[in-house]
Amino acid sequence: MSPILSSVHILHPRLSLYVKPLFLCKFTLLRQSLGINPRILLSVASALPPTEDGGSCGRSGSLSAPPRVIEEAVQKIDVNPPKGTRDFPPEEMRLRNWLFHNFREVSRLYGFEEVDFPVLESEALFIRKAGEEIRDQLYCFEDRGNRRVALRPELTPSLARLVIQKGKSVPLPLKWFAVGQCWRYERMTRGRRREHYQWNMDIIGVPEVTAEAELISSIVTFFKRIGITASDVGFKVSSRKVLQEVLKCYSISENLFGKVCIIIDKIDKIPIDEIKKDLKSVGMSEDAVEELLQVLSIKSLTKLEEILGGAGEALSDLKQLFFLAEKFGYSEWIQFDASVVRGLAYYTGVVFEGFDREGKLRAICGGGRYDRLLSTFGGDDIPACGFGFGDAVIVELLKEKGILPEVSLQVENIVCALDPDLQGVAATVATLLRDKGQSVDLVLENKPLKWVFKRAARINAQRLILVGNTEWQKGMVGVKILSSGEQYEVKLDELE
Amino acid sequence: MSPILSSVHILHPRLSLYVKPLFLCKFTLLRQSLGINPRILLSVASALPPTEDGGSCGRSGSLSAPPRVIEEAVQKIDVNPPKGTRDFPPEEMRLRNWLFHNFREVSRLYGFEEVDFPVLESEALFIRKAGEEIRDQLYCFEDRGNRRVALRPELTPSLARLVIQKGKSVPLPLKWFAVGQCWRYERMTRGRRREHYQWNMDIIGVPEVTAEAELISSIVTFFKRIGITASDVGFKVSSRKVLQEVLKCYSISENLFGKVCIIIDKIDKIPIDEIKKDLKSVGMSEDAVEELLQVLSIKSLTKLEEILGGAGEALSDLKQLFFLAEKFGYSEWIQFDASVVRGLAYYTGVVFEGFDREGKLRAICGGGRYDRLLSTFGGDDIPACGFGFGDAVIVELLKEKGILPEVSLQVENIVCALDPDLQGVAATVATLLRDKGQSVDLVLENKPLKWVFKRAARINAQRLILVGNTEWQKGMVGVKILSSGEQYEVKLDELE
Repeated sequence: MSPILSSVHILHPRLSLYVKPLFLCKFTLLRQSLGINPRILLSVASALPPTEDGGSCGRSGSLSAPPRVIEEAVQKIDVNPPKGTRDFPPEEMRLRNWLFHNFREVSRLYGFEEVDFPVLESEALFIRKAGEEIRDQLYCFEDRGNRRVALRPELTPSLARLVIQKGKSVPLPLKWFAVGQCWRYERMTRGRRREHYQWNMDIIGVPEVTAEAELISSIVTFFKRIGITASDVGFKVSSRKVLQEVLKCYSISENLFGKVCIIIDKIDKIPIDEIKKDLKSVGMSEDAVEELLQVLSIKSLTKLEEILGGAGEALSDLKQLFFLAEKFGYSEWIQFDASVVRGLAYYTGVVFEGFDREGKLRAICGGGRYDRLLSTFGGDDIPACGFGFGDAVIVELLKEKGILPEVSLQVENIVCALDPDLQGVAATVATLLRDKGQSVDLVLENKPLKWVFKRAARINAQRLILVGNTEWQKGMVGVKILSSGEQYEVKLDELE
Repeated sequence: MSPILSSVHILHPRLSLYVKPLFLCKFTLLRQSLGINPRILLSVASALPPTEDGGSCGRSGSLSAPPRVIEEAVQKIDVNPPKGTRDFPPEEMRLRNWLFHNFREVSRLYGFEEVDFPVLESEALFIRKAGEEIRDQLYCFEDRGNRRVALRPELTPSLARLVIQKGKSVPLPLKWFAVGQCWRYERMTRGRRREHYQWNMDIIGVPEVTAEAELISSIVTFFKRIGITASDVGFKVSSRKVLQEVLKCYSISENLFGKVCIIIDKIDKIPIDEIKKDLKSVGMSEDAVEELLQVLSIKSLTKLEEILGGAGEALSDLKQLFFLAEKFGYSEWIQFDASVVRGLAYYTGVVFEGFDREGKLRAICGGGRYDRLLSTFGGDDIPACGFGFGDAVIVELLKEKGILPEVSLQVENIVCALDPDLQGVAATVATLLRDKGQSVDLVLENKPLKWVFKRAARINAQRLILVGNTEWQKGMVGVKILSSGEQYEVKLDELE
């Protein structure tokens, strides 16, 4: 174990280690091994101020000067998941399952097929040179075979890889969705997680804007299902072709297009002077920058038409999208906003993002058309569009609105033997009910009735089945309906 | 990109690179950039003999002498997922979902709660010194913050970590299950995958053997659900306490117990002389080894009782387990086999593994009691047991038996506009049906009817809804029931 691994403290109470006094971050802790209580150590450890390396004391992100202590490590494992990651204990898992179930149900309603890809991909799949945040925070490393690999930061490149692999064997269009974990690596502590789950829906093989309209429709359906309305959330919609048309006027190289988009995506996040500086640094003239910023401030299609003229694809795509939105029934959810470009280099056409109308949160989801992604991987281009929808911001929004559901555990039956000798009979009863599709929490130890009732309440059991000597001599068991308190005896073969 | 990354070839057809003649493994390929067809490159690449590093030409696992070619790499991405990993295109994903659904349904029937943990954990969580295969193949690496981390090889250590973290806040027993991806790293090519999914069920807080009996019952329920019978599959059951009692007779240190178990676990895999040598190398006498091997050959509890006497815990646990198996109704599935010890260091009591009776496959699943795992992480011990059930061997078994289900895509409706001008109406129709909970594949482009019927067949649509001019003028759409060929027109607001 390298000395820098100071965040891991293993305490082995059954080893009679003499643990030396040690200097741990800003605290000097004198510990003795005999009778040491791991819970006390734990609480001491958690009283330490959090540092980037979970206790390495270096400057944030600094690799130098590892603490020279922990020579003989305190043998207590860090009980927290790695920095920036989550455990899902049952209550969190129920919420995650509820969310994912809705992702999947909506995808099913839209006729999409589920796919998945490895969470670990070749690093090369994610390397693009546009200064994207997603690229800069790549969770990459060298594996034991000295290959450069990365925990995927997004799903789309893997999807593109699979589409190229499948080639002409799959009939287009493909309508695919995925719910997968994505990773990023940030050195700085910003309270942001290093992993999140993302719901993606993609349509491969449809050049028409009907595809984008369908995708936005599916997200709207999702929002409605979970209780979010058009007054909570909206979609800002634009097209990168708007930008392209402006850049063309100033003869700016197509190669710069991705970079310009990445710069503009930061328009609400960093000062406008920085944006201007960055745009100039990639070769745009003062005039071009000013005109571009003018265009980006446009919030109506009419105004856009005045400036760009009515001939370009940008305008016709957007007009068609707004027409379809009306037909799909989600007009009130969407608005044109030329400043929306999204932060991924590969978008080529319509782009959109879901935002909370109170303006408190980051984008809830985002997507767009990426007609030329496949050729960057050496495949033949196929028109495509898709979106990503993370599991973090939506939960924040539901909390904000006070409509985060409380999903509780529900087990239909709790079965309990009243006598240790009847444990086998209780097992038979449980099997009988489970064979009928009923869920059963079988009490596996001899416990007092008070304990059983408490457990029944905790698991929201509907029925308590008691296996007692008196009843069992008659081949019967006791049933108690827990909501009403109703009680009766029933022959085992009549138990439904 | 490091030169060792030779397995990744990116071909960017829109860049007019002059690609130099290059020496790639044993083949010399002369390539010209103009008009180059990526598919041809692909087929050339796939004609190369597979090597450990996907093309690095070094000795298997060798880190020295990276090929000095690929200075200006051919810009074609490897379309395969990383070595040892899988994509899940729709047909594979449906099978995976079917399998996982059964894992989850059985867990629900038994009243278990789902949990999950990060796929990436601190390496320290998995470090044990018993020579386990799982430990030697740890997929570990250093992250960008110089921490030693690992893609989890199994779920139990994370579960133990979470249980310690939760401490006394959770009422025991916990009945938790998880379905998670696990990773291993093998340098050698053995046609084995580097990732698989594993279903785990664990009971924490029950010292009685009822817990093991319940776990085996749940696996039997799973087998039955997917069409596997007791004549296909059985469980070999033993207890590590058998071994412990033998070792105690020969005064062998308890510290060696885990190591001895790991050696014995290989008894069917490597020659018996090797096993003997390994056992002697950890300090067992010739006599002890012989007696141990004698005991391990026992296949009946009566015989075991003759040798060990009737007093020990090993025998009483196993007798109780076989009694309960009868009560749960799965006696015909289980048999005593003293040679079963399982390959994880932390088991302490009953151990079991599911095997195919034809003896063609590796163990299907395995588990046991691990009452002292928590203290190895610095927590207070809590009696616990659990099992792991992978997604690989079971699929092989289902294939062997010819009962792997064909799970097909099913979309209820396909909706199609017969005229481009009616695309908006088709969108309205799709929305109406989806609002009623019906799944709809909306045809997003203007396609000939022949194409639409072909697609309808591919997605197993039940109904085709046609939006045509004549009908729409009457506010109606055409409906065709695809199974019967029945056709009719219906008012939009009467479409169910």
